[in-house]
Amino acid sequence: MSRSASPEGDPARVDVAEAARWLDGRVLRTPLLRSPAIDRLAGVRVLMKAENLQRGGSYKMRGGLFAVGRLAAAGHGGVVAQSTGNHAVAVALAARRHGVAATVVLPVDAPATKVERARAAGARVVLAGTDVAQRLTAARQISDETGHPIVDAYDHPDVVAGQGTASLELIEDAERAGTPLDALVLPVGGGGGVAGACLAAAGRPIEVYGVEPYGCDSLARSLDAGRPVPVTPAPTIADGLRPSCVGALPFAIVRDRLSGVIRVDDEQIAEAFRLLLLELKVLAEPSGAAGLAGVLRLTGSNAEQLGGRYAKGADSAGGPTGGGRLHTVGVVLTGGNVEADLVARLATPHRIEEGAAA
Amino acid sequence: MSRSASPEGDPARVDVAEAARWLDGRVLRTPLLRSPAIDRLAGVRVLMKAENLQRGGSYKMRGGLFAVGRLAAAGHGGVVAQSTGNHAVAVALAARRHGVAATVVLPVDAPATKVERARAAGARVVLAGTDVAQRLTAARQISDETGHPIVDAYDHPDVVAGQGTASLELIEDAERAGTPLDALVLPVGGGGGVAGACLAAAGRPIEVYGVEPYGCDSLARSLDAGRPVPVTPAPTIADGLRPSCVGALPFAIVRDRLSGVIRVDDEQIAEAFRLLLLELKVLAEPSGAAGLAGVLRLTGSNAEQLGGRYAKGADSAGGPTGGGRLHTVGVVLTGGNVEADLVARLATPHRIEEGAAA
Repeated sequence: MSRSASPEGDPARVDVAEAARWLDGRVLRTPLLRSPAIDRLAGVRVLMKAENLQRGGSYKMRGGLFAVGRLAAAGHGGVVAQSTGNHAVAVALAARRHGVAATVVLPVDAPATKVERARAAGARVVLAGTDVAQRLTAARQISDETGHPIVDAYDHPDVVAGQGTASLELIEDAERAGTPLDALVLPVGGGGGVAGACLAAAGRPIEVYGVEPYGCDSLARSLDAGRPVPVTPAPTIADGLRPSCVGALPFAIVRDRLSGVIRVDDEQIAEAFRLLLLELKVLAEPSGAAGLAGVLRLTGSNAEQLGGRYAKGADSAGGPTGGGRLHTVGVVLTGGNVEADLVARLATPHRIEEGAAA
Repeated sequence: MSRSASPEGDPARVDVAEAARWLDGRVLRTPLLRSPAIDRLAGVRVLMKAENLQRGGSYKMRGGLFAVGRLAAAGHGGVVAQSTGNHAVAVALAARRHGVAATVVLPVDAPATKVERARAAGARVVLAGTDVAQRLTAARQISDETGHPIVDAYDHPDVVAGQGTASLELIEDAERAGTPLDALVLPVGGGGGVAGACLAAAGRPIEVYGVEPYGCDSLARSLDAGRPVPVTPAPTIADGLRPSCVGALPFAIVRDRLSGVIRVDDEQIAEAFRLLLLELKVLAEPSGAAGLAGVLRLTGSNAEQLGGRYAKGADSAGGPTGGGRLHTVGVVLTGGNVEADLVARLATPHRIEEGAAA
């Protein structure tokens, strides 16, 4: 088993507790939120870590700030990043905070919100193609020209460690409240967050699950194959969960630790988005809401209420589980940067259909 | 000056600190949230108390729980309440918590969300007319028939004290963070919340402002006249701010303590709603967003960015103020119970116009 498939790919270098110490006071310790209606639907206690309220609007701020902070401390005058949005915004904000330059590469179809946020943070924004390969090529070229290192969105030990601090806070705050987690659920793009979650949960009896949109299930396929398997990402409203391949470092971390991957469709993500908005009263982006959609599939007890859309159990690796065995499930609401038009479309079920027809 | 205009109208009976001790552990200590974008627009540090995340979806839970708890402790087997929504939901939830019966009187045009929430909490829901006089008549009749006391939505010392605890927590948490408030802003319906805020701020150098929609400005008119003056409430998206007259007890409390009333229109409320949703990532109901709309008018520094819609200064009683003198302004986001259709309509500016045209 290769644990060093990427140059940065040494899991032993990933230290969530160290990142947590460094980030203390530099990021918000976001609240754990609950909703009686969501608990009822899930059939378990659901503790939601509101990283949509984090600085920069997503938990990517944690990884970006930690990684850029270390590079700035090492004397680098600038950094380069590519992502579908939130990581770029996070690196841009982190670079400004540390007084170094940032160039971020976004897809040409990136949500305008994320482009504006990166620009507002003072970053140079380069738009390149629509897939990760095109963005990586552009990022490498800029890195070669400027000499500024690339801060990868997930295949980077400091990014994984930083993102893992959201899970660590969730685990610790749940213990402090007297309701320790039985399971922890995170949406999966390149796998940095779920890898950080596996490390944060290490040594505790907590099952960790990833959630992927159907057709963007590189992690599920990679776990089945025993090696990173790319996919051609299908369209999904969860624009942050569309990397074509799980990162080598995240894969090396999660392959023996993850309890399973739960696949969700856009209807389930939209339903979770509405529950978060109308019951919990917070705005999550679809990628952030995907975690709750996964929780509802995992616990399965809501199958009846929601018209049987949520089947019982997880899809792969680790076997299915029911609501009966789990009492408290944590989920990280990873981000909240959404376009106003999409909010309007998703807020009511009929408007989704309007949007789909338009 | 009559300080006992209503049977319950003795301000000396209103003790916010006592209510805070009683409510400790019974309600959420909701977080203070901030947004760099909102700070920039306001030109001051804006600390937002997220009572939309409170149990029951609004800060009315505080007054309802405290008042009903005392009545239950005194041996009453049931309570009656009337309101445009959130107070009824709060009393229904409070009654269930204390094991007593609840009958709540709502207007026939109450948002379905609030009717459903009251019913879900086990209350008997009675729909009566569209104005407060019709609801009060119905509530009194039910109270006479059942012998259950009425828990008024604002003209009740325990309700005022309970609602005031949201302001007290905001004041204390701001001090603890090293950013004590210069001003505190609350939306005004019957005046219970702003009266509680005045009592919570007593003895500290904090200016307290109320916010009323144009045409629903009973408090502003009452302050000018020196006595409670009813209005025929104009239509507004802030359905919770439409009582026809400020309560006698709240008026007695605020008349000598309030720094001013800020009037806002539906466009300003909708703009604040969008800022809260898209920048702060939380869902406030229009009545809850009205407080932020008032902050933006009060500080006035955003006049340019928002097309001059926000004039500088307050409208009445206590004189205008500019952004320069204020450094930190607190505002209570009083509630978050909104219809999905209204969220969809308000999320983008053009959809408001669609809604208005429809």
